[in-house]
Formats: sequence, structure tokens, C-alpha cells
Amino acid sequence: MERKMITTYDLFLSLAKGELKDGESVFLEGWIRGNRDNGNIGFIEFNDGSAFKNVQLVYEKDNPQYDEIAHYKYAASIAVKGNVVLTPANKQPFEIKVSETSLLGDVSEDYPLQKKRHSFEFLRDIAYLRPRANTFNALFRVRNKLAFAIHKFFQEKNFMYVHTPIITTNDAEGAGQCFKVVEDMKDPTGFFNANACLTVSGQLHVEPFALAFRDTYTFGPTFRAEHSNTSRHASEFWMIEPEIAFADLEDNMDLMEEFLKYIINYVLTNCPDEMNFFNTMIEKGVIDKMKHILNSSFKRVTYTEGIEILKKAQENGHKFEYSDIYWGMDLQSEHERYLTEEVVKGPMFLIDFPKEIKSFYMKLNKDGKTVAACDLLVPGVGEICGGSQREENYELLKERMEEQGNKEILEWYLNLRKYGGCIHSGFGLGFDRLLMYITGLSNIRDVQPYPRTPGSIKY
Amino acid sequence: MERKMITTYDLFLSLAKGELKDGESVFLEGWIRGNRDNGNIGFIEFNDGSAFKNVQLVYEKDNPQYDEIAHYKYAASIAVKGNVVLTPANKQPFEIKVSETSLLGDVSEDYPLQKKRHSFEFLRDIAYLRPRANTFNALFRVRNKLAFAIHKFFQEKNFMYVHTPIITTNDAEGAGQCFKVVEDMKDPTGFFNANACLTVSGQLHVEPFALAFRDTYTFGPTFRAEHSNTSRHASEFWMIEPEIAFADLEDNMDLMEEFLKYIINYVLTNCPDEMNFFNTMIEKGVIDKMKHILNSSFKRVTYTEGIEILKKAQENGHKFEYSDIYWGMDLQSEHERYLTEEVVKGPMFLIDFPKEIKSFYMKLNKDGKTVAACDLLVPGVGEICGGSQREENYELLKERMEEQGNKEILEWYLNLRKYGGCIHSGFGLGFDRLLMYITGLSNIRDVQPYPRTPGSIKY
Repeated sequence: MERKMITTYDLFLSLAKGELKDGESVFLEGWIRGNRDNGNIGFIEFNDGSAFKNVQLVYEKDNPQYDEIAHYKYAASIAVKGNVVLTPANKQPFEIKVSETSLLGDVSEDYPLQKKRHSFEFLRDIAYLRPRANTFNALFRVRNKLAFAIHKFFQEKNFMYVHTPIITTNDAEGAGQCFKVVEDMKDPTGFFNANACLTVSGQLHVEPFALAFRDTYTFGPTFRAEHSNTSRHASEFWMIEPEIAFADLEDNMDLMEEFLKYIINYVLTNCPDEMNFFNTMIEKGVIDKMKHILNSSFKRVTYTEGIEILKKAQENGHKFEYSDIYWGMDLQSEHERYLTEEVVKGPMFLIDFPKEIKSFYMKLNKDGKTVAACDLLVPGVGEICGGSQREENYELLKERMEEQGNKEILEWYLNLRKYGGCIHSGFGLGFDRLLMYITGLSNIRDVQPYPRTPGSIKY
Repeated sequence: MERKMITTYDLFLSLAKGELKDGESVFLEGWIRGNRDNGNIGFIEFNDGSAFKNVQLVYEKDNPQYDEIAHYKYAASIAVKGNVVLTPANKQPFEIKVSETSLLGDVSEDYPLQKKRHSFEFLRDIAYLRPRANTFNALFRVRNKLAFAIHKFFQEKNFMYVHTPIITTNDAEGAGQCFKVVEDMKDPTGFFNANACLTVSGQLHVEPFALAFRDTYTFGPTFRAEHSNTSRHASEFWMIEPEIAFADLEDNMDLMEEFLKYIINYVLTNCPDEMNFFNTMIEKGVIDKMKHILNSSFKRVTYTEGIEILKKAQENGHKFEYSDIYWGMDLQSEHERYLTEEVVKGPMFLIDFPKEIKSFYMKLNKDGKTVAACDLLVPGVGEICGGSQREENYELLKERMEEQGNKEILEWYLNLRKYGGCIHSGFGLGFDRLLMYITGLSNIRDVQPYPRTPGSIKY
């Protein structure tokens, strides 16, 4: 594709390569993010969307269009002819001296964005315009790079990407928080001749592929019909779910660690301007926090050890809000954070959980009481993702499925264990929460293009 | 991640680099795709899922496990220790001489796959096992590479990937074939406080991003509640929808052509074994068909010219099944194919359609009768994808939206035209149909992991 204009991204790239020439003539198209003048000289903060940083356009009194340009509004789209002026001594290493412009799209008086800081709540309400605000400009760029890093990591390791289905008949975890999918309200099972719902996880559907292709992953939208109006819950979010054959819990944790380090490193390397923005404006120190992950070797602690540590801490006077700590409990975020922040002081895996608090498909350990599951805990958050080795023993899995009452509907899943099955493992990582963690943004509504939450589906 | 075993993919890679050594000891884990012996020597066709091609394992009478190995069943999973034997004179350039094996997962008697050719209908019914069959082994590998090629192409061009929402309140094209999404059948609008449905297109949601980031794309699942039980219709399928700002219909067609050539070339280069399989077993000549696309410059013909050509062909005796040809009609597949196969003899764009047969958001041409839309037609299929320049004029778009009655619900979409709008364009390409085209598979149910069609949602 050849378009006549050059992008600001091309200009920055050219500059980085030392190839940007003083006086070079350029033709740009983009948006005004600021315009001020003093009657003799004017400056436009110009952004064409191809780069995070603005480019400064300078127009001077000798320009016959001076008055016209000076009246261009914030957010208008313009075409610009001009010449590069290298300004190595300045904060901005180059600017564009404008020779000619034309207004492509004006801005009406009711435009809701102004050149000032708006609250996130306000911006959420105009989700279709907020990509133009600095924070969201940075955020969606990181979102894009992070998504690509995920594919790149797995493809480089010869993993197979599988599009597991969105419409399904099973609710995977048995959590029962599925949205129903119907064509005609009067005949809910009519279209598919079955109860259909939106997937809560691709795991069960990707396992058959791992048992054919060895290393596989899904990366797609998942859904929860939960009435949880918190900053960490959305009704629709993207999940990454790798599934690997001939791999046990140790292999799985190795993969989780390697994966998380790879994608964080990719973002730090490929989004330096955006990450500096988050580090300055959103969460001071978030870059160091990410570097700490890269430089840590992830510790492995059993759930049983974890409970002992927490009990001891309590005996020594540490106050937990949720103070009833016992073997068999589901850890609260404060407990997870104590372990990763105060004890290990870095990322860690908590492993081998009581089978009662984990899913039916997890491999029963030899002790008969715990399952080969692992939660990855990180400072500042607690659990960021979880995985497990899957039960590959037909009889043991059948027993668990009968207890759960899902043996009938998932007969095919069980069958995998008698048709050349093997040990296999996998994990699930919520993409949007990961993005919150990396950027420091604290509300899931602020990391998604058009968030869907209970009572809210404006666009 | 370090797993003790080596993959067959690694062995083939090592061979290609000239680094595979005769006698090299290996440890493999994978599945048996064939096992035969004559009492003195036996051969296992072995596949661990990491490569399309099998590796031959050889076990000889002097192996103390000989009888045990000879009884390993088709589809069982095994672990193998052995040594590489280079056999450059043979069809298979190396084999593995087995020293030791263990059975990891046996296969019960009711295993439905056999080492023979099964019908596609039969395999569809066991969707969770068919990835193990040759055709689907090849197919899902191509699907994976094709999906990655799409991201790679756009990322290399600095496009922004946007996760447009799956649950939405608008049906984009106004086609009205949306699945409804509800939490509680008794209170259909309860969860979101609105009528919610599954997206039929991400286009309207990605346009605001193009007007902030210039070059953008979506790639995600879309849905149609259509009762079309044909080989080309599925209720759930993936779509690629790029949207580019400061770009007209010509730019859009340039992008479509470059994109299609890039991804086809990527598959031919990265899936040679799989494409040879399709070329031999599924559609003879499919590789040449793909190469023809790569070597063609895509012609551009207006709809009005197209109609004239078809009328003339009819006058000269060509028989169309659908014989009522007039300006204003929607072309049928046979007409599209006549143009691309008989007239242009290659890929072509048909452009500038009557506004009445195209969507409300397409840019009205100066003639006041046609819109700046383009359909890409290819031999053997007809239309493979379509795009358009979008109407950027506020008043004209408002008029069209009032006609359609969707002005209220899409007010925000209209507003984009008065808030620094600009010319912009985009296209939509159905991923699954593209995959059919590239592999020669003729039923959409055979290119998806778990197809969803009317009355059918088994897994």
C-alpha cells in the first residue's frame, strides 16, 4: 500500500536511524492535539495516530495561511506540507516548519474532550472518543503490543493456536455463570437444538488439540454473567490458555515463568514511551516492578507450607482481616500478597492445593488430598494466573466427574483418557488483568476498548 | 521451558540445517499412527504433534521388548529412547532405531478412528478426535500459520490490533440476524439493562480507533443466527476487519491486494508439507491456484462495466442460471465467477456498486447513484471479501441513517463525522472461508475446530 503521506512513526524511525535530514519535505495527515500562537509564531501538537509522541508543527507570520491555521481547533484533522527542522538541542529533537495546510475535518462545538485532564469516569462514558486521550493512546498501544507478544512467544516455540468455540454447551468450571445464547426467546433451544451459552474458558476444548499437536494455546474472548461490580471484574474479557502434552506441573510452571518474562520484556522493549508515561502519570515505579519480575527466579512453595507460614505470621502478631486461617481454606488476596510481598519478596508459585477448592480436572497427587495445581502470585496483586496438571487417569477423572454431575455432557472429554492419553498441563491468564498489572491502571474498564459490565453496555 | 524430550520438529529442523548426526541418541514422546512388523523387524509411524510428517521408528528382533512393542496399538501414546539412523537414499531421510520404549497411554477397543480413510461426515461427528487424522493435522497447522500471518502482516505495518466487543447492542449491517445474549430468560434485558446480542462485525467499533490510531484492525469471532444449512455458512466464524484513516477506496484495494498476497505467500512458505498434502489429496492444483494469485495484478472493473459485460455475454449466447441481468441487481456467484474466470482470468475488484444494494455507511460517489465499495473476486469462488470507503460527510451519513432507522442507537458513530473526521476505509474478510480457499476444503465445517451450525453444537 502506498499512500502519499508519510507517518510520524516513519519520521521517528528515520530519526532513530540517523537518517532524518534537516530541510526534508514532508506531507502529513493527522489530528491537532494542541494549537497555540502569539500572533507571530504558532505551534501545533500534531498526532497522526501512528506514534504515541506528538510532533510539533511550527507556523510563522510569513505563512499566508497564518490566521487560518491559528484558528484550527483542538481535535481537527488536517493535512500538512512542511519541512523537517532538526532541533537536537531541544527536548523535541525535530519539528516541522509548516508551508501549507488544509483542514480535513472540523470539530463541532459540542466536542466533549478538551485539552485538559479528564476523569477516567468521564472518559469511560465516551469510550468511542477516549483513544484520543493520552492515557488511552498509551494504553491501547500497549494492549496491541502485548497481544502480539503472546502470539509471537508461542509461535516461536512451535505452539499451535486454536480458535476454541465461543458458543458452547458446557460451562467448563461448573461455575454456572454463563450467558445464554438464543435466537428466539420463545424457543430458547431452537436454533442449536440445545442449551447454548457463551464460553467461560477454552481449556476443555483445547485439550483434544494438545493430545494431537502437543503444544497448543487459545487466545480469545471469554464471558462471565457475574453481578460483581468491582474494578477487577468484566463480563467479557480475553484469556490466554496454553495446553501442553507430555508435560507435568513443573514443565507448566517453567512455561508460565518463561512466558510472563517474555511478554513483559517485549512490552518494555517495544513501548518505552508508553511505559514511561505510565511510570510517571499512573503508577510510579511500575517499570521497576516489571524489571523485578524479569530479574526474579520464581519461587515454589506448597499450599501446605503457605498455610503454616501464614499461621506463624499471625502468631507473631501480623493482623489479617480474614483471620480464620486453616488448611483447606481458599486464600484471600491479603494472604497471597503477604506470601509474595513479605515472605518471598518476589513472584512465586503456590502449588498442591486441597482438591476440594480446585477444579474437577486437576490431577490428584499421591497424597490423595491435594491436586497438582499452581497459582502464580506477584507483589502488588496476589494471584495473577493459575494452572494445573490435568488428571490423565480415566477412573480417577470419571469419579470426580460423577461427583460433579458433568460426566454425561463431557463424556468426550473423559474419553480422551482412554484414547492414547498422556500427562498434560496448562494454565489460564486473564489478558485484561495482565494489562492492568503492566500499566498500573487500576480499573478493568480502563484497559478494554468497550468494557461490558453489569448494567453497562453503552456502545 | 526445558522438557527432557526432543520433538520431531526439532529433528526435522536439525536435518534441514545439516546438523542431524547419525547415531545421535534421542528421547521422544508421541503417538503411534501405524505399527506393523513381520516377526523380525517392525516399523512405527510416529507423530508427536510438533510436525506434520511422521517419523519412522524401527524395532528389531534383538530388542528385548520386541513382542511388547509389536502389540502397541494404533493411537497409543509412547515414550521412546533410540538413535538416529540417517537414510539419505530413502524417501524418509532418517529413521529412529528403537532401544527402549514405554507405553504412556493405551487405547481402548471402542476407539472410533482407524488407520484408514474416514469420510469427512464421520470425522465431523468426532470433532474432538479428528485433529489426529491426516487432513485435519494438515488443516489446523495451516489455520494456525494463517492466523499468525495476519497478525504479522499488520504488526509489520504498524497497525493497531483492537479487541472490538463480542457482546453488543447494535447489529452493524442492520441484517437483524443476531443471537441474543441473556443471563436470565425471564428478564432478557436485565443483566446489561439493554437488549444485548452477539456481534456480526467489529467494523463500527473499530472506526473510532482508526480515527485515533490511523491504521487498525480487528481479528475475532463474529456470529450469524442464519438458518442457512450450506457448506459455506457457519453460525460462528472469525473475521479480519482492517480500518484505515486518511485512505480512500484505492488505498483500501492496494491494502487488500498486498494483504492477501502476503498471507498466501506466508502459508506456501511455512506449510510446504501441508500444502503438498492438500494439492495431492484435496484439490489438485491448489498450489498453482495460489501462485497465480501471487503473480497477478488485481484488475479493477466498475459494477456498471461488469453489468455491461454480463449482458453482452448473454447476448452472445452464454447461459446464466440467473438470467435477469440489470443495473441495480445483486450479482450472483455465477456472474462473479464469469467475470473473474472468463473475462479477467484472475483476481479482480468490482467497484462502485448501486447504493441500494450496499450498506448505509458506504461513501456516496459523485454520481449520487453508486457507493465507493469494492468486492474482491477470485477464480473458483467469486467474492472472497469486500470493503468500502466510509461516508465521512455528516449530513449524507445522517440521511442514510435516518432512512435505515438506526440514527438513535448509532448517534456516536455519526458523531465521529463532526469531531475531526477524515476519509477512511476498510474491509472485512471471513477467515474460515479464506482457509477453505487456500486448502481446497469445500465445507466450512471442516476448517473449524468445533463448527457451530443450525441444529449442531455437539461439543
